[in-house]
Amino acid sequence: MPEWRRDPILDRWVVVAPERSQRPSDFQVERSPRKSGRCPFCPGNEANTPPEVLAYGPPERTPDTPGWHVRVVPNKFPAIRDLPPDAGRRGPYRWMNGMGRHEIVIETPEHTADLDGQSPAQVAEVLRIWAERSRQLARDPRWRYVQVFKNVGHSGGASLEHSHSQIIALPFVPARLQRELAAFVRYRRDTGRCVLCEMVAWELADRQRLVYRHGGFVAFAPFASRFPGEVWITPRPHTSDYTTLNAGDRLALAQTLLGAIQALVKTFDRPPYNLVLHTVPVGAREADAYHWRLEILPRLSITAGFELGTGCYINPLPPEVAAGWLRDQKAYGKEKTNDPEQTGQHY
Amino acid sequence: MPEWRRDPILDRWVVVAPERSQRPSDFQVERSPRKSGRCPFCPGNEANTPPEVLAYGPPERTPDTPGWHVRVVPNKFPAIRDLPPDAGRRGPYRWMNGMGRHEIVIETPEHTADLDGQSPAQVAEVLRIWAERSRQLARDPRWRYVQVFKNVGHSGGASLEHSHSQIIALPFVPARLQRELAAFVRYRRDTGRCVLCEMVAWELADRQRLVYRHGGFVAFAPFASRFPGEVWITPRPHTSDYTTLNAGDRLALAQTLLGAIQALVKTFDRPPYNLVLHTVPVGAREADAYHWRLEILPRLSITAGFELGTGCYINPLPPEVAAGWLRDQKAYGKEKTNDPEQTGQHY
Repeated sequence: MPEWRRDPILDRWVVVAPERSQRPSDFQVERSPRKSGRCPFCPGNEANTPPEVLAYGPPERTPDTPGWHVRVVPNKFPAIRDLPPDAGRRGPYRWMNGMGRHEIVIETPEHTADLDGQSPAQVAEVLRIWAERSRQLARDPRWRYVQVFKNVGHSGGASLEHSHSQIIALPFVPARLQRELAAFVRYRRDTGRCVLCEMVAWELADRQRLVYRHGGFVAFAPFASRFPGEVWITPRPHTSDYTTLNAGDRLALAQTLLGAIQALVKTFDRPPYNLVLHTVPVGAREADAYHWRLEILPRLSITAGFELGTGCYINPLPPEVAAGWLRDQKAYGKEKTNDPEQTGQHY
Repeated sequence: MPEWRRDPILDRWVVVAPERSQRPSDFQVERSPRKSGRCPFCPGNEANTPPEVLAYGPPERTPDTPGWHVRVVPNKFPAIRDLPPDAGRRGPYRWMNGMGRHEIVIETPEHTADLDGQSPAQVAEVLRIWAERSRQLARDPRWRYVQVFKNVGHSGGASLEHSHSQIIALPFVPARLQRELAAFVRYRRDTGRCVLCEMVAWELADRQRLVYRHGGFVAFAPFASRFPGEVWITPRPHTSDYTTLNAGDRLALAQTLLGAIQALVKTFDRPPYNLVLHTVPVGAREADAYHWRLEILPRLSITAGFELGTGCYINPLPPEVAAGWLRDQKAYGKEKTNDPEQTGQHY
């Protein structure tokens, strides 16, 4: 059975989720993405996944049959499970049973490795299903945080090729999110303002780290970028909860995200990366102080002993240089320039 | 010039350290350890490193000539530099110049990839030079934390093959270390005891996660292990500062560390890993609440979007299982069983 365990020194939870096979040789450094002939995420193979929990497609469609354009299914081999709450202590340690939800968002019926070839309308549907499924999970009183993320490429942690993202519902608010919310609250108390709103205003005026701007969204390389090519996307109007986006917001966000990913793919020759949503914890106090963001984290460097020890990072690429490269790709890239929906402003 | 930059939301410092070459193609995912014919760390090639700052060898030896058995040199391409303090604000952001020290400990004159083939006496000399150089750096009022670590293998972040570790002196106490010390202080205030002493006592009695015990040191797989095969080594008597070890302690620690590394190398077929020292920050208040430890972090799994977002981890290998495998390797391994110095107790 999977089990959540808390580190007694740092308030850090780990889920110990034994896989069925348990020999030392099962732990290999180089596990390439599985490329079998039969992709479990492709239309026609719906029986190879657990039954879907949400999908978008024509109204007459039968669940778990083709015709969907975005589909959410439980992870077939979940690290955490849909269990009733149970928790306790063992000597100096705290544990909880491995409760949680781990779901997969199949982002397109096409067998493609990433979102960058998709239309803005298709990406907007992915953003819609992230929000709708997050809201559904938040209604369950067991879940305190819903983490949406996407792993691309082998070094990015992807184990299946077909473009997908993941949603994990957690029975606690991770310490990192608690600290983020506390920082927003403290800044507002001290200054009356939102720290991320101030960052965005600075970046829009300063322009050197700006990557892309479209509708109400801004993509920029953060001042303290941890990773070469790191980009944050955030709404310009202060917004705490990702799931409150409306249809117009979603299309503008899809265009901003596509602009950033396409620039990244061209600049760094299709790098592995992670996409990580940071949004307000479920039912948090002073929730309105939070300002959500989507982080794009290219994995072009290896985080090693220094980062693991200190939580600090060494970044060999100044974000001002990275932003310049990404802007050049957006402005001069030849692909998709005839797409009328690609109307973002270039800097 | 390198520059420290603080993330305004999380109290996280990043050093932006531009390398000389700055083209997108310089950022490659797969950079294997350099294997040139001429290793800059081998005896006879001392001129290929900056002048040494500390070395152990015969007293008559001339610096930067062969004869040393451990040698510390500044990093030839340091991310941070020995600069006078300078700091300021830029809009909503705080920065400092890229001050710090980044040094390399060449652990043996032999061109070998790891410590596991070295004698306990040689490893004890590495532990001694870590401590002596850390104490020297701590006397400089600019440095607030000294991070000792070692990267092994490509996925572990090693860029040169010859066995070496690294010492980085920082002009601030990383937020992670501040939180650790605060947790030790809080636990002592609440209970009168040390949380890591309590963990060690539990592990010694419980035995299921115990890997190795020798002299005053214990190696165990922590209850909330983040990584498959993770091992912590810590002194049984409460000790805050790593650098206060005496010669007997160092030999016992060397044997414990060698025991753990040899077991790891055999169990997981020479995995990449990081070795990370956690010790008390320089001149900290309530420093005596801290209890130092050495973390061995095998890199057999990829940390991806979930870990980057939440700071939580999914570990597919229960530490009880890992500890059993590591104990079996220690007990039944055929190598070095005739070494009279390998006298640790096996569980």
